[in-house]
Amino acid sequence: MITSTSNPVVKQIAGLQARAKARQESGLFVAEGAKLVEELPESQKIRVFASESYLQNEKNKKFAEKVGAEPIPDIVFQRMSDTKSPQGILALARQRTAAREEVLGGGPVLVLEGLQDPGNLGTILRTGEAAGIGGVLADPTTVDRYNPKVVRATMGAIYRVPYVVEPDLGECIKALKKRGFRVFAAHLAGRTDYDREDYRGPSAFLIGNEGRGLTEETASLADVYIRIPMEGQVESLNAAVAASILLYEASRQRRQR
Amino acid sequence: MITSTSNPVVKQIAGLQARAKARQESGLFVAEGAKLVEELPESQKIRVFASESYLQNEKNKKFAEKVGAEPIPDIVFQRMSDTKSPQGILALARQRTAAREEVLGGGPVLVLEGLQDPGNLGTILRTGEAAGIGGVLADPTTVDRYNPKVVRATMGAIYRVPYVVEPDLGECIKALKKRGFRVFAAHLAGRTDYDREDYRGPSAFLIGNEGRGLTEETASLADVYIRIPMEGQVESLNAAVAASILLYEASRQRRQR
Repeated sequence: MITSTSNPVVKQIAGLQARAKARQESGLFVAEGAKLVEELPESQKIRVFASESYLQNEKNKKFAEKVGAEPIPDIVFQRMSDTKSPQGILALARQRTAAREEVLGGGPVLVLEGLQDPGNLGTILRTGEAAGIGGVLADPTTVDRYNPKVVRATMGAIYRVPYVVEPDLGECIKALKKRGFRVFAAHLAGRTDYDREDYRGPSAFLIGNEGRGLTEETASLADVYIRIPMEGQVESLNAAVAASILLYEASRQRRQR
Repeated sequence: MITSTSNPVVKQIAGLQARAKARQESGLFVAEGAKLVEELPESQKIRVFASESYLQNEKNKKFAEKVGAEPIPDIVFQRMSDTKSPQGILALARQRTAAREEVLGGGPVLVLEGLQDPGNLGTILRTGEAAGIGGVLADPTTVDRYNPKVVRATMGAIYRVPYVVEPDLGECIKALKKRGFRVFAAHLAGRTDYDREDYRGPSAFLIGNEGRGLTEETASLADVYIRIPMEGQVESLNAAVAASILLYEASRQRRQR
């Protein structure tokens, strides 16, 4: 049993929670909380840890046994945890990278550029799975999807939505268009209401940074600029809300086909 | 000029930031950041404060003069602020309570029960204004809308979306029905896809707590249970996302009338 907060594994996990660089160099991440540990695919699981106080509950204890959790003192768990009030169970896990082909195989594709808020990215993955997207292509300036706040906000969708970090978003969008995708940019300069377009064919949505939106370079590659009509004095919608409205309009149209 | 962190106004503002009870007893709140100070209606404004370092920028200084901000030392401002890296300007302000009639005068009505996350409530008000809702009726267990995190997340919609705290949500829903509103509950037991219903007449949407949903008592008062179809293994959507999808479906139908 690990009993010291200076154990190398404890330090490794704390580092993976805190630093994107540590996650990127190792290809590992931390899945924290019972739901995320339960849904973690076996092929990605490395080790599971549960705090002693977590294990005092009978139901928790059974779950911990099922997932092969190693007991550790609360103080050691706290050091590994990303939250102030930890649930008491977490897994050290392998990242999974999809191939671009996987993303293009199904429903609408989300293309993200410079999205910064972890809660927004997590919520987008959660809604994206629910709306039946094919997957996500993200530029390297988008927040790391294995950031612990992103992982938690996905509620498990992180394991199931194909996701590729694309070093060259321009090349990637051109490739989408060659494959017959129609590329829609949610853009303040959009003249077409989003609900006047047809998303039943292969469709990709470009979503930009929360404050600045899409770069001109990326926006210029879109086939159509769409807008979500806004009443009152609202200047923009939350990025996750905007993405959700577009994805569910696509889902609505596809279900009515 | 206020120079001490123990000045009673400083303590009052810090108290309003931290405690719902202080806000409820005084009927006051704090609007922090340039956008929220700028959009604050004159009738609600009491005093504005700007930090000395904020005022070193010429554009900030002009804005501060326009809104009648009093300069204060950074250390005093930090004590008043709710954020770790304050923007440097905030207003002490009066709350505004709408009458129920105001809420029922326009577009769809949102009825909230036990919503807990400040970011969700703020985002719902922001999206609600954009989607043209009539207003919000919330039960007393819903997070205080003058919580600083809610206020920030509204991006100013807090000033414009009519909002009433209803001590008796059951009575309130019955009154809506008497007025001819059709009441829709977003519910896991829903059998009708949300996009199969007609929201062009007077419509109200019941939205429940993030984890537990609506209480049975409240849900039982709905005319129709609707569901947002979800693919994959997703069990529920984020509350603000679910509300946004429903409100924009209503907006879409109303624009096509």
